Amino acid sequence: MNLKQLSQHLGISQTTISRALNGYPEVNAETRRKIIDAAQKTGYRPNVAAQRLATGKMGSIGLVMPTGPDYQSDVHFGEFLSGLGEASARNGFHLVIMPTDPANEENALKELAVSGSVDGIYLAYMKKNDPRIEMMKGLSIPFMVHGRSWGVEADYPFLDVDNETAFHDATSLLLQLGHHNIALLNGPEGYDFTFRRHRGVEAALGESGYTLRQDNVSHSIMNDEAGFLKMEQLLSRADRPTAIICASTALALGAVRSLNHRGLKPGRDISLIAHDDVLPLLKPVNFSVPLTTTRSSLRAAGLRIAERLIKQIKSGQPDNQQELWKAELVVRGSTGPARV
Amino acid sequence: MNLKQLSQHLGISQTTISRALNGYPEVNAETRRKIIDAAQKTGYRPNVAAQRLATGKMGSIGLVMPTGPDYQSDVHFGEFLSGLGEASARNGFHLVIMPTDPANEENALKELAVSGSVDGIYLAYMKKNDPRIEMMKGLSIPFMVHGRSWGVEADYPFLDVDNETAFHDATSLLLQLGHHNIALLNGPEGYDFTFRRHRGVEAALGESGYTLRQDNVSHSIMNDEAGFLKMEQLLSRADRPTAIICASTALALGAVRSLNHRGLKPGRDISLIAHDDVLPLLKPVNFSVPLTTTRSSLRAAGLRIAERLIKQIKSGQPDNQQELWKAELVVRGSTGPARV
Repeated sequence: MNLKQLSQHLGISQTTISRALNGYPEVNAETRRKIIDAAQKTGYRPNVAAQRLATGKMGSIGLVMPTGPDYQSDVHFGEFLSGLGEASARNGFHLVIMPTDPANEENALKELAVSGSVDGIYLAYMKKNDPRIEMMKGLSIPFMVHGRSWGVEADYPFLDVDNETAFHDATSLLLQLGHHNIALLNGPEGYDFTFRRHRGVEAALGESGYTLRQDNVSHSIMNDEAGFLKMEQLLSRADRPTAIICASTALALGAVRSLNHRGLKPGRDISLIAHDDVLPLLKPVNFSVPLTTTRSSLRAAGLRIAERLIKQIKSGQPDNQQELWKAELVVRGSTGPARV
Repeated sequence: MNLKQLSQHLGISQTTISRALNGYPEVNAETRRKIIDAAQKTGYRPNVAAQRLATGKMGSIGLVMPTGPDYQSDVHFGEFLSGLGEASARNGFHLVIMPTDPANEENALKELAVSGSVDGIYLAYMKKNDPRIEMMKGLSIPFMVHGRSWGVEADYPFLDVDNETAFHDATSLLLQLGHHNIALLNGPEGYDFTFRRHRGVEAALGESGYTLRQDNVSHSIMNDEAGFLKMEQLLSRADRPTAIICASTALALGAVRSLNHRGLKPGRDISLIAHDDVLPLLKPVNFSVPLTTTRSSLRAAGLRIAERLIKQIKSGQPDNQQELWKAELVVRGSTGPARV
């Protein structure tokens, strides 16, 4: 059955049917339900081009998902995805995900952007001097950047957490508690957020006349096992740090495991601060000693980005806002005075 | 610039351009790259209908994602998504995700299936007597079910873990160790997997002349906080169980936290078994006392389902296989003899 036949069968115009099936709010709920039921019963599948003709839009946001046999699923990805999903559901949008080998991310993005199947692009996992921003500017499709790219002029639409200030604040707190041999369990090298967090720690130490020792800095994926391994390496040193800052509560999970194995208590024997993306599975208050954190919700960021992007798509107006969220420093039991 | 103009500009046929932009392997890598670069530079966005005309396919798998302000992001969802993504990337497919309020899942699925933007549907979060299977059978689009639906004749294509046998095996192990006051921290009520796991525990106890006490069974979402809360309730009872089976390592995380608070050691004071979906963040060996588990990888299941679905889509041949995976019982330190 084609659109014309379905239209005759129902006595409803082809345009209304297209709008209803594409989730546009102009069609009232009852008519919409009637159309969807009929489409189901008759096995009708609309021509996507006809829908676009009627609405001018696909109602979709595209994004690239890094994947591969050696690539662990990333709990942070699931979290911002849930925010994107919530805002999309509210606006009748869907998500188009292009899974790809991380080494091929730029090409995957290009293909997605020119595929014609998405109305806007969500960009994440930003690197320093990221060429994808220039590429997106050259395409005629709205986009929003989650994060920023050091080295690229900030004239594109983004939402970022102020990572530098967050990690500066965390370091300042530790300095006030008498720590200066401070270590940083950072995320993977090359990413913008990793770089800015490093700068924040370095700057705060520098302002107090200290330096961030190179052997106090590690880069790794942000999971439990990496946190354990990096912490074990640090604690094996004679001149081991008295305080540790972790780039994620997922790293902190492993770091605390290492402390437990050695009978060391966070806040008493060693101070610990983690960045809290507000992952539901790893709440800082549920650690054996509640974690001091810099907090900023990844899900809230995903939600806000989707809303800005959908607004761009629906209005046709460009969005050129550079939005910076301040992370909140939340002091709990895992930080304490340096032992002399 | 339209397809015709781009074709003239490059001296490449419209069909080849459409095929290249849709990721079909007939086009050689160099031509493909040239076309994508030109599409990017000229801001060309193809007509999706033209692509479908050339290829007959969208190259996409659709699925529904439960979401909402009161709905926590689910670590299990991210895990099977990574498997779907890996198989899709390998086959040049993308994923179309329809986010929706959990109460509206059936309608969302119907809309996605009739939207014309997907070639096949991945179905998950199966309930008992799930009406979605009958609905999918009435549509002319390939689908694959992750899980099964109790009460629906098993003549549709699915992949499921043998949940009943897995939990029967776990219970039998506990019975051999002398436990019979056994509790089950189960997933949410109404789901097929929850129901079958309950049956497995019940059957094994019954075969040994015991019964599963109703106050030893709880239903909840499968996360850390629910695990903690349910375990606290069980441990507060005078006749508390001597062994616990958890439906997820995420529940076990909270359950162990409750034991730690009370100074109880898994395997010595109380026995603990969890179902292990092989979530990278919650490895059973990394628990303070390594967890005895029934193991079956969610990611591997996602991967296998995507491969079967893509094969259906590409071949046009129906898939009517009922595939059942046996979970592996892995005995570690968290189980021990019942104390008399």
